[in-house]
Amino acid sequence: MIKVKAITVGRCKETWLAEAMAEYKKRLTGKMDIEWIFVENDGEMIAKTEKESLLIALDLGGKMLSSEELSHKLFTEWGSRLAFAIGGAEGLPAEVIRRATFRWSLSPLTFTHQIARLLLTEQLYRAIEIEKGSSYHK
Amino acid sequence: MIKVKAITVGRCKETWLAEAMAEYKKRLTGKMDIEWIFVENDGEMIAKTEKESLLIALDLGGKMLSSEELSHKLFTEWGSRLAFAIGGAEGLPAEVIRRATFRWSLSPLTFTHQIARLLLTEQLYRAIEIEKGSSYHK
Repeated sequence: MIKVKAITVGRCKETWLAEAMAEYKKRLTGKMDIEWIFVENDGEMIAKTEKESLLIALDLGGKMLSSEELSHKLFTEWGSRLAFAIGGAEGLPAEVIRRATFRWSLSPLTFTHQIARLLLTEQLYRAIEIEKGSSYHK
Repeated sequence: MIKVKAITVGRCKETWLAEAMAEYKKRLTGKMDIEWIFVENDGEMIAKTEKESLLIALDLGGKMLSSEELSHKLFTEWGSRLAFAIGGAEGLPAEVIRRATFRWSLSPLTFTHQIARLLLTEQLYRAIEIEKGSSYHK
């Protein structure tokens, strides 16, 4: 089973986001284990990410991927232990971006980091369904 | 006030999505009026969109925009009466895409149409905040 750490600034305050995340957590049971790590500031983000050997930085300046490309990277390139870093309103510290194995841009649109969390989760779930060839992704 | 129609296939079933939409509806009060129109099939989608003179089709094959570009288009190009069409799992009917004033791709990622609804709403709210120069978008 793939084990993912998702390191992010600021807790989940919106009820709707908590519910959406709980829904995807349920769907991911037995398929992927996502551990959410909440940090308070850039210093903690740097500390929490520096031991990660496979680190994906969510960054507007990164490369965009289709869902199929993400699935391919996840299953053939990145391996089963990886960490995603999602910055706050100011983005990620330069040091984290520099260290990252891959800089991933979800879209040229700017999203709240709450929405970025939802998109990451849904795309990871979708990546699994793409790999399985299920009807979720068609 | 900008009046937007958002024409979409399938109702909102997820509680979390309904809550998120209610939250943005509240925030948009007095700024933008979004009318959600739910259709059941392609035929209804074609019927509901054919009288729209300014129609934006959400389409993976369309052009991507930054949030700033979307805001600019909304306030200087598209005018105050417009409609967005969001397809179901199979995307929009070719006729609707052909008729559209603009084909907009949110991202190279595939999203559920529920998530597309949330992203559209948040980006419209963000577009207003960009135009106002508020701190929501920085």
